[in-house]
Amino acid sequence: MKTLNKILIANRGDIAVRIIRTCREMGIKTVAIYSDVDRDCIHRFLADESICIGPGNIAKSYNNIGNILYIAEKLECDAIHPGFGFLSENPEFVRRCKEKNIIFIGPSEEQMVLMGDKSKARRTMQKLGVPVVPGSKAVLKDKEEAKKMAEEIGYPVMIKASAGGGGRGMRIVHQPEDLEKSFEIAKSEAISYFKNGDLYMEKFIQNPRHIEVQVFGDKFGNAIHLGERDCSMQRRNQKMIEESPSCYLNDEERKGLYESALKAVKGTNYEGAGTVEFIVDKDKNFYFIEMNTRIQVEHPVTEMTVDKDLIKLQIQIAAGNPIPFKQEDVLMRGHVIECRINAENPESGFTPCPGEIEEINIPGGFGVRFDTFVYAGYSIPPLYDSMIGKLICKADTKEECVAKMNGALDELIIDGIKTNIEFQRELINSDEFLNDTHDTGFIERKLNER
Amino acid sequence: MKTLNKILIANRGDIAVRIIRTCREMGIKTVAIYSDVDRDCIHRFLADESICIGPGNIAKSYNNIGNILYIAEKLECDAIHPGFGFLSENPEFVRRCKEKNIIFIGPSEEQMVLMGDKSKARRTMQKLGVPVVPGSKAVLKDKEEAKKMAEEIGYPVMIKASAGGGGRGMRIVHQPEDLEKSFEIAKSEAISYFKNGDLYMEKFIQNPRHIEVQVFGDKFGNAIHLGERDCSMQRRNQKMIEESPSCYLNDEERKGLYESALKAVKGTNYEGAGTVEFIVDKDKNFYFIEMNTRIQVEHPVTEMTVDKDLIKLQIQIAAGNPIPFKQEDVLMRGHVIECRINAENPESGFTPCPGEIEEINIPGGFGVRFDTFVYAGYSIPPLYDSMIGKLICKADTKEECVAKMNGALDELIIDGIKTNIEFQRELINSDEFLNDTHDTGFIERKLNER
Repeated sequence: MKTLNKILIANRGDIAVRIIRTCREMGIKTVAIYSDVDRDCIHRFLADESICIGPGNIAKSYNNIGNILYIAEKLECDAIHPGFGFLSENPEFVRRCKEKNIIFIGPSEEQMVLMGDKSKARRTMQKLGVPVVPGSKAVLKDKEEAKKMAEEIGYPVMIKASAGGGGRGMRIVHQPEDLEKSFEIAKSEAISYFKNGDLYMEKFIQNPRHIEVQVFGDKFGNAIHLGERDCSMQRRNQKMIEESPSCYLNDEERKGLYESALKAVKGTNYEGAGTVEFIVDKDKNFYFIEMNTRIQVEHPVTEMTVDKDLIKLQIQIAAGNPIPFKQEDVLMRGHVIECRINAENPESGFTPCPGEIEEINIPGGFGVRFDTFVYAGYSIPPLYDSMIGKLICKADTKEECVAKMNGALDELIIDGIKTNIEFQRELINSDEFLNDTHDTGFIERKLNER
Repeated sequence: MKTLNKILIANRGDIAVRIIRTCREMGIKTVAIYSDVDRDCIHRFLADESICIGPGNIAKSYNNIGNILYIAEKLECDAIHPGFGFLSENPEFVRRCKEKNIIFIGPSEEQMVLMGDKSKARRTMQKLGVPVVPGSKAVLKDKEEAKKMAEEIGYPVMIKASAGGGGRGMRIVHQPEDLEKSFEIAKSEAISYFKNGDLYMEKFIQNPRHIEVQVFGDKFGNAIHLGERDCSMQRRNQKMIEESPSCYLNDEERKGLYESALKAVKGTNYEGAGTVEFIVDKDKNFYFIEMNTRIQVEHPVTEMTVDKDLIKLQIQIAAGNPIPFKQEDVLMRGHVIECRINAENPESGFTPCPGEIEEINIPGGFGVRFDTFVYAGYSIPPLYDSMIGKLICKADTKEECVAKMNGALDELIIDGIKTNIEFQRELINSDEFLNDTHDTGFIERKLNER
């Protein structure tokens, strides 16, 4: 099997640690980069080499393509792993890696551009026979076209930025009189966040489930899926809990999602790890919403379900190997739940709570995994993401998995900062989560009831 | 499926924590017992109820059958899990549990008595067609019989206590002139450790491998095996590293061990978790040495290989259920290595090093597990076992698993006490371990070379 010699990890925190661990196992050297506020961040101590890339400001450090490529060349890295966030979905970065003859561990520039343009991705999926939410076939020319379209597909509708993600540049419109204003707000958000004011429109599916399929493609045209993750427990489009399998679907419905996800991979000759995201309505109709062209935060859920290392698979594919197993060799076993652990205060609007971790006690045992980068004495800088860990539990059934997660949350003690541990406990023990009647609006409704 | 309501855990430390975690997942209440020097031991905080059972002295606390049964009755426990060590192989305890109508999670008194008497177990195995080391068919009457027997089977021979274990009451005799003295020493050790001076004799197999098979039986006559563990990396009969599968065996040889192990289970109508231990000589002949009638320290190796919770399986069987899967449903995947982490000083004869743990950093990630009961600020009492944790790694191949273990040992930081972490690193990176040319005498030879 072809392999790589040295990988630069263009990221920080838990995903950087995650990638280093797999490289170590594969006998691949690693180079960590860190901003000057991250000098105590553990990823830089675990890598074989580490280099300060610039100041805390993201544009000058973790998003600084020039500096990153300079270091990668200087230290003779043959590949770069972008992790998630930062440059992981930046086609310019992919192109410039290629120019320097450095392997970008991810899809090609073209594949990334296609999926990054949400309205184009939508049209492509439609052509491939993947169900999409009824809506505009192209970018909306102007407010007038938007109005006409909304009448056609029926209110409520959603206006979305073509280049969007994470809920930005997105507006729900319930009635004709709100359309104009929402269009304007979405456009200005889209321009300010994504430097691209293109908008498109979809029918707004009220309170759907969010279910995604983990897929991989290789340079030889092979495509596989590794099952689904149900990420319906979200707050403002930010996932809080992910699980696999989704108890909302029966096997027939599940198969439908898998087939569509594989169409997306095969139809675009997709290479590497990807996630095909769907929303599923009350009648179990499912609609493609987007495809993420990178590894995701919640990838451990799938790793524990199928007992395969997804980062290793990314590296093997990027090195030029075919996927080293067949679809029928993928066995999904048990039930897996992941709770994201954030340094934030649920009592005051989930404001981030950076600061020093005084003590930490990490849960363990059979089927319990805590992916983190923090340690006792570590100070969480205020500049970056508030996620400090992911607690993942696996058991035979969802009921047992929730019981296991309760125990693991009990054992997880983080002193010195505020966290969402207690809030996560409320969520997993809610009737809605246990009975699978929750949807993506559940947390907001719950918070409003307080 | 039948279940239990409340289990008293007649143990401490890592195995007590391990059992509590599974009970929590199964919705079973737990009662922890602890000696007064163990008041900071974490098992007592994780259980639903906990009771101080007596002073540090084992006979007055963890081995105090009367007190334990009194508490179990008082707190309405329907079962007791003995863990390993302490009362786990004490037939009197099993009998007295039965008298009180409390389920002992383990085999029956008769099965335990049979396997506890090493020379009787040996005869039973012979009858069942399981290969045993050539040697005496019954207890040796006296020195004269011992001499005659040694001439018959050929030197070197081994004199062993019928009731023995852990290397006690065991003597290797290389030549006739040493026989008499060794017989006397073994007898007096056997009497002082096991209150039973019965001895038997076996041919001494020079530098064997130690390979054991994990088995389970139920009340319905079903018997399964969950693969083998190679525990050849030992120091003075104390296992230090365990792995699965054993790379010393090919599939055909492996199958031979499994078949013999299943004969042992079926032939004795064995119930619950057991381990059939074999030694394997240079020509790949294997011989039964003993069967342990309890869960073992190294059970996580098997859990990670077959992706099943062995404590859960013990409880399900004890509750009166058949084994809930078939032999063909047992899938063994990847390579798993466990390093025992002890509070001891390898530089001064592995003397135990109790004391306060000032800081601890626990490794994590995909396929990494650290089973422990210690935490920052915890003081290891000098009274009990020096094992403070078990670091278990799983990867696709042995080579990758060793690389992963190296990384995990790097990440495992325990400040304040001496540990064998560095020594474990030497062992897993030795040519002998990597090439599977080591045997049970490897560590002693290595230490003598220093």
